[in-house]
Amino acid sequence: MANPPVIILIEPQLGENIGKAARAMLNCGLVDLRLVRPRDGWPSAAATANASGADIVVDNAKLFDREEDALADLNRVYVTTARTRDAIKPVFTPRGLAPELRANVARGEKVGVLFGPERTGVRNEHVSMADAVITVPLNPGFTSLNLAQAVLLIGYEWWQAGVAVPEYQMLMNDTFPATRDEIELMFGHLETELDQSGFFRVEAKKPPMMRNIRNIFNRSNLTHQEVQTVRGMIVAMCGAKHRKKS
Amino acid sequence: MANPPVIILIEPQLGENIGKAARAMLNCGLVDLRLVRPRDGWPSAAATANASGADIVVDNAKLFDREEDALADLNRVYVTTARTRDAIKPVFTPRGLAPELRANVARGEKVGVLFGPERTGVRNEHVSMADAVITVPLNPGFTSLNLAQAVLLIGYEWWQAGVAVPEYQMLMNDTFPATRDEIELMFGHLETELDQSGFFRVEAKKPPMMRNIRNIFNRSNLTHQEVQTVRGMIVAMCGAKHRKKS
Repeated sequence: MANPPVIILIEPQLGENIGKAARAMLNCGLVDLRLVRPRDGWPSAAATANASGADIVVDNAKLFDREEDALADLNRVYVTTARTRDAIKPVFTPRGLAPELRANVARGEKVGVLFGPERTGVRNEHVSMADAVITVPLNPGFTSLNLAQAVLLIGYEWWQAGVAVPEYQMLMNDTFPATRDEIELMFGHLETELDQSGFFRVEAKKPPMMRNIRNIFNRSNLTHQEVQTVRGMIVAMCGAKHRKKS
Repeated sequence: MANPPVIILIEPQLGENIGKAARAMLNCGLVDLRLVRPRDGWPSAAATANASGADIVVDNAKLFDREEDALADLNRVYVTTARTRDAIKPVFTPRGLAPELRANVARGEKVGVLFGPERTGVRNEHVSMADAVITVPLNPGFTSLNLAQAVLLIGYEWWQAGVAVPEYQMLMNDTFPATRDEIELMFGHLETELDQSGFFRVEAKKPPMMRNIRNIFNRSNLTHQEVQTVRGMIVAMCGAKHRKKS
């Protein structure tokens, strides 16, 4: 998608955190990083080391002296803060904002998210520069979020709002679930062997017991190969028993 | 909630990352951390320093030699991995899993999530210990996620599934939106002054122009105090103009 959200870090302190933020950005398809008065200067070897390969983000990061310049080309600006502010302002959760971000970017807007200095967070002047506030719902007893972690959560929600990965799927690789016929032959084999080995001591209980056994195996979504494995186990165990008997 | 999910780190390397993972856990209300063969030993000063106050997690972390012992009391085990595996296994996204985790914990189950070593991730033997796999949908061009970041995303979804924070709200603090009456008096004041200052050059265009002006201000959800501020601005500017004229 053209122009994914811009991340603006105000007075970031440790190069390490800038690097980890860059890594989190690229994890989520964000590439435009802007730094306003980074404490330890720029470029930063620590940032590059901690980006763990997200060089495209670190190498293209832009440096600014003034917040206004870092925001100049943006159509919308959001600011992250953990604390309730005096400002009268719309407040989004990252999840609530993500579809709006997607829609705005899709219509050609350029949007950005402001993050404040590590220890103090953004100041009221930064809140006043933004159209809305983003606050992450977290454990109210411990809301202090690492800078890179905060960037990750915004990016994560941005990415989730744009992908269509099923929330649940059975990973089959190149295998297929066994056919019902294979499954039935397996249960027939099992039932015969259990019968012969005296497993069903009370004839009346055999049907409910077989249903329970069917449920155990049918919960497993057996593949063709796994049905063969189970049948092999049956053969081996019955063979062992026959050997013991003899 | 009793027994929130347990986090199990297998062969974690840097104490720094363990500490950051502990911090992310507490951000999300998770407190039970288990370490299997941490490379640099335990306890770890680096872990404590990087936990940034999440001491309750670090101080109570339990140490294990064997995965089996770390998982012994758990009813369900999930394993995180970025790579597709050979195993035939259910795969959840963190978001897809979270409601299931909540439901299982609510009925008294003890659940845990396994994370592999930083560089290599979990091994196939770990996947075979788990009921299901968790994979985070991320930028397929750069999926390498820092350990603490991975822990955060699982915890984040767990927390989100349990809170009822509105995705959007207007933060009003202790103020109230102005009444419609206050708003109307403000527009009346503004219209009178604009009339007198010759702003509406074409009489026929006055109604649509006033509608546009109303929309600008009504989008702002003005409070009582802000209506007074706007009226003060009108008075000041008209006064300035009158002074210029005279």
